[in-house]
Amino acid sequence: MTDRVVLAYSGGLDTSVGIGWIAEETGVEVVAVAVDVGQGGEDLEEIRKRALACGAVEAVVADARDEYAEQYCLPALQANALYMDRYPLVSALSRPLIVKHLVEAAKYHGASTVAHGCTGKGNDQVRFEVGIGALAPDLKVIAPVRDFAWTREKAIAWAEDRHLPIDVTKKSPYSIDQNVWGRAVETGFLEDIWNGPIEDVYAYTADPAQPRAADEVIITFEKGVPVAIDGRPVSVLQAVEELNRRAGAQGVGRLDMVEDRLVGIKSREVYEAPGAIALITAHQELENVTVERDLARFKRTVEQRWSELVYDGLWFSPLKDALDAFVAKTQEHVSGEVRMTLHGGRAVPTGRRSAASLYDFNLATYDEGDAFDQSLAKGFVQLWGLPSKIAARREQQLRSAGQ
Amino acid sequence: MTDRVVLAYSGGLDTSVGIGWIAEETGVEVVAVAVDVGQGGEDLEEIRKRALACGAVEAVVADARDEYAEQYCLPALQANALYMDRYPLVSALSRPLIVKHLVEAAKYHGASTVAHGCTGKGNDQVRFEVGIGALAPDLKVIAPVRDFAWTREKAIAWAEDRHLPIDVTKKSPYSIDQNVWGRAVETGFLEDIWNGPIEDVYAYTADPAQPRAADEVIITFEKGVPVAIDGRPVSVLQAVEELNRRAGAQGVGRLDMVEDRLVGIKSREVYEAPGAIALITAHQELENVTVERDLARFKRTVEQRWSELVYDGLWFSPLKDALDAFVAKTQEHVSGEVRMTLHGGRAVPTGRRSAASLYDFNLATYDEGDAFDQSLAKGFVQLWGLPSKIAARREQQLRSAGQ
Amino acid sequence: MTDRVVLAYSGGLDTSVGIGWIAEETGVEVVAVAVDVGQGGEDLEEIRKRALACGAVEAVVADARDEYAEQYCLPALQANALYMDRYPLVSALSRPLIVKHLVEAAKYHGASTVAHGCTGKGNDQVRFEVGIGALAPDLKVIAPVRDFAWTREKAIAWAEDRHLPIDVTKKSPYSIDQNVWGRAVETGFLEDIWNGPIEDVYAYTADPAQPRAADEVIITFEKGVPVAIDGRPVSVLQAVEELNRRAGAQGVGRLDMVEDRLVGIKSREVYEAPGAIALITAHQELENVTVERDLARFKRTVEQRWSELVYDGLWFSPLKDALDAFVAKTQEHVSGEVRMTLHGGRAVPTGRRSAASLYDFNLATYDEGDAFDQSLAKGFVQLWGLPSKIAARREQQLRSAGQ
Amino acid sequence: MTDRVVLAYSGGLDTSVGIGWIAEETGVEVVAVAVDVGQGGEDLEEIRKRALACGAVEAVVADARDEYAEQYCLPALQANALYMDRYPLVSALSRPLIVKHLVEAAKYHGASTVAHGCTGKGNDQVRFEVGIGALAPDLKVIAPVRDFAWTREKAIAWAEDRHLPIDVTKKSPYSIDQNVWGRAVETGFLEDIWNGPIEDVYAYTADPAQPRAADEVIITFEKGVPVAIDGRPVSVLQAVEELNRRAGAQGVGRLDMVEDRLVGIKSREVYEAPGAIALITAHQELENVTVERDLARFKRTVEQRWSELVYDGLWFSPLKDALDAFVAKTQEHVSGEVRMTLHGGRAVPTGRRSAASLYDFNLATYDEGDAFDQSLAKGFVQLWGLPSKIAARREQQLRSAGQ
Repeated sequence: MTDRVVLAYSGGLDTSVGIGWIAEETGVEVVAVAVDVGQGGEDLEEIRKRALACGAVEAVVADARDEYAEQYCLPALQANALYMDRYPLVSALSRPLIVKHLVEAAKYHGASTVAHGCTGKGNDQVRFEVGIGALAPDLKVIAPVRDFAWTREKAIAWAEDRHLPIDVTKKSPYSIDQNVWGRAVETGFLEDIWNGPIEDVYAYTADPAQPRAADEVIITFEKGVPVAIDGRPVSVLQAVEELNRRAGAQGVGRLDMVEDRLVGIKSREVYEAPGAIALITAHQELENVTVERDLARFKRTVEQRWSELVYDGLWFSPLKDALDAFVAKTQEHVSGEVRMTLHGGRAVPTGRRSAASLYDFNLATYDEGDAFDQSLAKGFVQLWGLPSKIAARREQQLRSAGQ
Repeated sequence: MTDRVVLAYSGGLDTSVGIGWIAEETGVEVVAVAVDVGQGGEDLEEIRKRALACGAVEAVVADARDEYAEQYCLPALQANALYMDRYPLVSALSRPLIVKHLVEAAKYHGASTVAHGCTGKGNDQVRFEVGIGALAPDLKVIAPVRDFAWTREKAIAWAEDRHLPIDVTKKSPYSIDQNVWGRAVETGFLEDIWNGPIEDVYAYTADPAQPRAADEVIITFEKGVPVAIDGRPVSVLQAVEELNRRAGAQGVGRLDMVEDRLVGIKSREVYEAPGAIALITAHQELENVTVERDLARFKRTVEQRWSELVYDGLWFSPLKDALDAFVAKTQEHVSGEVRMTLHGGRAVPTGRRSAASLYDFNLATYDEGDAFDQSLAKGFVQLWGLPSKIAARREQQLRSAGQ
Repeated sequence: MTDRVVLAYSGGLDTSVGIGWIAEETGVEVVAVAVDVGQGGEDLEEIRKRALACGAVEAVVADARDEYAEQYCLPALQANALYMDRYPLVSALSRPLIVKHLVEAAKYHGASTVAHGCTGKGNDQVRFEVGIGALAPDLKVIAPVRDFAWTREKAIAWAEDRHLPIDVTKKSPYSIDQNVWGRAVETGFLEDIWNGPIEDVYAYTADPAQPRAADEVIITFEKGVPVAIDGRPVSVLQAVEELNRRAGAQGVGRLDMVEDRLVGIKSREVYEAPGAIALITAHQELENVTVERDLARFKRTVEQRWSELVYDGLWFSPLKDALDAFVAKTQEHVSGEVRMTLHGGRAVPTGRRSAASLYDFNLATYDEGDAFDQSLAKGFVQLWGLPSKIAARREQQLRSAGQ
Repeated sequence: MTDRVVLAYSGGLDTSVGIGWIAEETGVEVVAVAVDVGQGGEDLEEIRKRALACGAVEAVVADARDEYAEQYCLPALQANALYMDRYPLVSALSRPLIVKHLVEAAKYHGASTVAHGCTGKGNDQVRFEVGIGALAPDLKVIAPVRDFAWTREKAIAWAEDRHLPIDVTKKSPYSIDQNVWGRAVETGFLEDIWNGPIEDVYAYTADPAQPRAADEVIITFEKGVPVAIDGRPVSVLQAVEELNRRAGAQGVGRLDMVEDRLVGIKSREVYEAPGAIALITAHQELENVTVERDLARFKRTVEQRWSELVYDGLWFSPLKDALDAFVAKTQEHVSGEVRMTLHGGRAVPTGRRSAASLYDFNLATYDEGDAFDQSLAKGFVQLWGLPSKIAARREQQLRSAGQ
C-alpha cells in the first residue's frame, strides 16, 4: 500500500500547492485535513472540494468549533492566559487542536507522516511539531515551506503550471491567522514598529473611537465556566461568539505589541480578541471576589507559566497537565455574575455578585454593622513587621559598632 | 523636658482633634507633620496654622512632591507595579515617604513616639507602623483611632467642646486618599459590590464616554526614567502631572475592583490613576522592545512580588532592597520613545523606537532582507520537543505493557 | 447544659493542670483529647486515666498513626517538603491532624471552645488556631499558657495544691516534640547558637560517627507512595517506622539549623528525622528518573510554597488544596525502585529502575546504540542562544555609537 | 593574511588531532588555547608544547585559577547554586571562563572562528556556543566532533598516520571533567542507572565509609566571601583548595544522580565536589542567621533560576546579570563564622556567630530574659488565619444553602 501524508490544509495557496508538490516529490498519497476553529471565511465543503481538485486522495473537514471553545479556549480563560500580560494566545490555542485532528486522521488513514505549511521563523512550526511528537512520537513531520525554502513566487508558478483551481491574485498585505478566540495580523508595514496600525487592519472590531451607545452585559459563570449571558444560557462557544459580536462592536480587544517569539526574535503583532478579552476581564474580577488571597497570588505565577508554556508549543506536556490540575481546583468557587460595560474599546466590570463571595460586607464596611475586631490589628502589625524591625536594629548596632 | 509625639497630620477632623486629645491623654507635646505628595486641596500654610490652632507645639509642612515622584513613583513605574494586575499602589507608595518624614521630624524634635490616624482594618496602619519600625525601631507608635476606638461622632463632639477651627459639617460620602500617583475612593454605596460607580466618584478623570478628540503623546524614557514628553524635557513629577492632565482629560486610568487587603479581608476599591496607567503602559511596551525575553519573563515574577511587598507595607525591607537591585539592572537599556493615543479611557501604544531595540527588522521580516536562517529551526524544534516526545513514548510503552 | 471545652491533651504537666484550671476559671466541663501520632512514650490508656484524674469529664484517646502517615506525611513526601531546604516539617505536619481530631471531638461532645497549651512565640499556636478556624470557624479558642502568661512554676504549684497525679520532678532540659515523622529539640544550651549539639540531645538516631556496617535498602514506590521495602509490602506507616529504625541506626537525618519562625523571629532547632529524610531522598531520585524536566523545575517552586504554607499553619487552606492537586498529578509516573546505602549519617541512592523511566539508555549512551541525532544540536544551540546574541549585538552597536 | 581558528585545547586526543584536522580541512592556521581552572593533571607547559607539535601556529596557556574561583565559583557559592537541588555546576561554571579566554585570544590573534571539541548531545556545546555568541556575536564557531561526526577510532587513526605525540593507549573507561570546583564522571558502566558507582570512580574524595577521626573547621565569611579558614586568611581559591583537601579526605561531596540535560535527555552523572559542598553548606547556614525571612524565601526562587540559567549555558545573559545584582544585595550582611564537622561524608554545621546576626537570644529564649511580647500573638494569629476562616464560612453557607 502506498504511504500517505496527512497535510494540515487551509484552502489557501501554499497548502493547495503543497498537496501536489508533496505527492510528486515523495511519491506518497496526500490526505488533506481542514479544521474549523471558527476562522470564518470559506465554506468547509468548498475547501474540501478544492483539496481533491488539487490532488488529495482524501479530504477531511471537521467542525471543531465547540471542541475548540470547550477544551482549548476555556482552559485559557480559567488561566486568564495573557502572554506577556497582553496576548490571549489566539493562534497558540488552535494549533494543538489542529494537531489532535491531524494525528487522528493519520491513524485513521494509515499515514506515517504529517505535513504543515509553517515557515521556520515562527512559533507555529514548534506548536505543530512538538504537539505531534507528544501525541504520536512515531509520526514523521515534513514542513515544505521551511525545509525546502518555498516562496510565494514558486507556489504561484507551480499552481499556474498545473492549472490548480486557486485564485493566486488574492493577496492580503498582511499575514493573518484567525479563529473564534481572536485574530492575529502581522507583516506588511507593521514590521516598522514605529508605524501605528490603520483601521484597515482590523476585522473583528469596530473603531473604538466612533461614538455609539454603550452596551451593558451580565455574564454568569459556574465554576469558572461562562454559562449565561444576560440570563440566557449559552455554551462556551456561544459565549465567545456573542461577546465577539457585542464587544467587537464596541471596539474592545485590540492589541498592538512587540512580542518575544520562542525562536529567539522579537516580532510586532496586532491582535483583536473582543470576546476573549471581555471574558477574561469578567473572569478575573469574579476571581477577585471568590478566590482566597494566597491562592490568588500563587495563581498568578501559575497563569504566567501556563501562558508561556502554551505560547511555546507545549500544550501537550506533563507540566501543562499538572498546571491544569492546579487551575481546575481554583475554579471550584468561581461562580456568580459580573456586570460589565462594553464601550469605547473598554470592557469594564461595574458589579459582581456571588453566592460563593469571600467579600464580607460586615467585615469590610466602615458603617454600622462593622464586625471586624480592630483590637486584633495591633498584634498583627507588630509581628508582621518584626523581621524588618530586627533587621533595622542590626543596622543600628553595626553602625554604632563601626564608630 | 516634656516628651513629644510626632503626629501624621492631614488637616482633617480626625487628626486635628487628635492633636489635643493626645496632648491631654498622655501629657506630651504634639508636633504635627503634614507632607505634600501632590494630594492637592488646601494650602500647606493653612494646614500648618490649623495644627497650631488645634494645640500643636510645632507644625511642620513639607513639599515632598519631587521626592515622592523620583524615589517612590519611579521605582513603581520601573517595576510596572500593579497589585493584583490592576492597582498602581497609589496609597501604598505615599505611606513610606510620609513615614520617612515623620521619623526625621521625631529625631529633629526629640520625640519618642509617632502617632497616626489609621483605623485597624486597613492597610495603612501596617504601612505606617512597619515602616516606622524599619527606620527607627526604638520609636513607639500610637494609633488613637484604632487603639481607643474613636468614631466620627466622638471627634465632632470633642472639636465642638473645644471650639477647634474645623468645619465639622463637611463630610464626603466616601473615604478618599489621593496624591500625584492617583486617587483611591472607598466606602459609601460602593460597599455594595453590585453597585457601579457613578461619575460623582471621580475627580482626576473626565468621563471616558464623552466624545472628544484623541490626544497623541510621545513619551521618551532614558534607562527607565521618563525624561521628555513630546520632546520637551520633564522631571518625573512633571511627567506624572502632565499625563494626569492629558490622560485624565481622556478618562484614562479608572479602576473598579475587589481587592485583597493585608489584614485578611476583601474590600471594594475605586481608583483613578491616569498618569500612572499611561506611564506604566508606555514603559511596558518599551520594555517589550528593549528587554531580552528570559529577563522579561523573570521580571514579571519580580514585579508581582515587588507589588505585593509594597502593598503589604514592606517598602523598607531587605527583600524590597534586593528586588530594587534586580529592577535597576533591568532598566539599563529601557531607553527610547513610545507614541501613544490617549482617548476614550484608553492609553494605547501605537509606535516605539529605540537605539537599544532588540527588535531586528531583518530577523523579523518576511520580506526581502530576511536574515533569519530557517534551516536552524528544525533542530531547535526537535530538541525543544524531545522531553515531551520521550514522555509520550513512555505512555505508549506503559499502555502496551498494560495490555 | 454546661458548656464544654475540648483540650488538646498531652499527658504532661501543663495540659494536666490546664484541665482543672480551665474548669475552675470558666465554669465549663473539660474534655481531654490525646492523639497518637507515633510520639511513643506513655501508653494512651495511662494518659486517658490521668486526664480523668485531673478532672476531665471525658477523655478521648485516638490512635491516628496510620491516618497521620497516609494523609499528612505522604503528601509531604510527595512534595519533598523541606522548609528552608532542610526541615521536614515534623511538628508542622502533626498539628493539623490533631486539629481535625479536636474539632471532631468538639462537635461530638457539644463543646463551643477548643483549648491548646502553646506559648505565644512559637509556630504551633498558629497551626492550632488557624487550623481550627478553617475547619470550624464558629469554635472559640483559648490558649491559657499564652493568654494568661502561665509559667512552669505556677503549674507546679497548682498541681501540688490539688494533689494531681503528675510527677512534677521530671524536667527535660529541652523542649521536645516528636512523632513518627521525626523529632524536634529546642531551648536549653542550644539557645546559644555557637554551641554544638551533644549526643544526649538525640533519641531517634545513633551516633553517625560510630563505625558499623552499612545497610542497603531497596524502596519501591507506586505513584509516589512507598509500597515495599526490600520487596516486602508495607503500609506508609510501616515504611516510615522501618526506615526510622534502619536509617536511625545509621545516624541518618540529624539536622541543626537556625530557622525563620512565622512570628518573625529566628530560632535554633535540632531535628532528627531518619525515616523522613531517607524516604524524601529516595523519592527525589525516583522523580529525577520519572518526571519530565519542565515539570520537575516548576515542581520545585510548588514544593517550596507548599513547605512554607504548611510551616506557616495553612494546611487547611485553599492554596494548599490547589498545590496538592498539582503535586498529585506529578506523581502519576513516580513508580519504581531506588536502592540506597544507609551509613554514617548518609542515605545515598546508588541505583534506580522504573518501568516509567524517562532515562533512555539509547539516547544517553556515548557507546554503540546511540540513537541521539547530533545533527539537530546545531540549530538548537543557535536559536537557544539567539536572544543573548542579539543583546550582544546591541551592546556592540551602542558602544560604537557612543564613540 | 591567513585566517585563524582559535581552538579550545585540552591536551587530549580529540583536540590534539583537531589542530591538524582543522588546519587541513579549512586551510586556516590554528591557535590552541588551554586554560587552567584547577583541573590538575599535566603541566601547562607540556600541553603548550604538544599543541605546537601537533601543528598549532600559536599555543596559549593561561593560569586562570584565581579568576575562576573569584569570578565564577564565588557567585555560585553566593547563589548556593545546586542544579536540581544537588549538582554544584562544576562543568557549567568553567565553560564561560574558557569562553572568555577563547574570545580574547581570537581578538588578539585575529581569528574569525572558534572551535571546540564537544559532542552534540551534551550541555557543553551550548555553553561554548551561546557564550561565544554573547561575547562576540560575529565570531563563527565550529565543532568538528559534532558537525563532522568524529569518533575516537577516527581520531586515533589520524594521530597514528601523522605520528602525533599523543599516547593513544590511555583511555579512561569514563568521561571525566574536572576543575577546582569539582569533578564530573559519566559514561561507562554508569550508563546503567541501576549500577552503583565503585570506589574506582572517585579521585577528589576518600571513601566516606572508612573510619577516621573527624575534622572540625571554622569558615569565616565577609559579605558572602570566604575570607578565612580556622582564622587563617585565605583567597577564594585557597578556601576551595583547602576544603577540597580536608572535606575530600572525609569523603564529603559525592553525588550520584540522574540529571536533566538541556538538550532534552536525562543522563546519569556522578560528581564529587568536597570544597564546593562544604562551602555552600556553611554559607547557607550563615545566611539562615543573617538573612531576613522574606528575602531568604525569595532568594530560593532566584537561586533556582540562577542555577538553571547557568546550567543551560546562559552565563553571559541579561537575566544572569540582573539575578547577580539581586544576589549581590543579599550578601551585604552575610558575615560571620560557621563551625563545621567534616566526617564520614558529611559536612555538618555545629555553630555560627555573626555581628550581623538576626538571631536574637532575648527574643528566642524561653528562659529568663525573654523579651518577646506574647500578647501580640493573638491578634497576629487571628488576622493571619482570617482568609482561611472566611473561606471556611463560605463552605458552611454553601453547604447549608445546598440543603
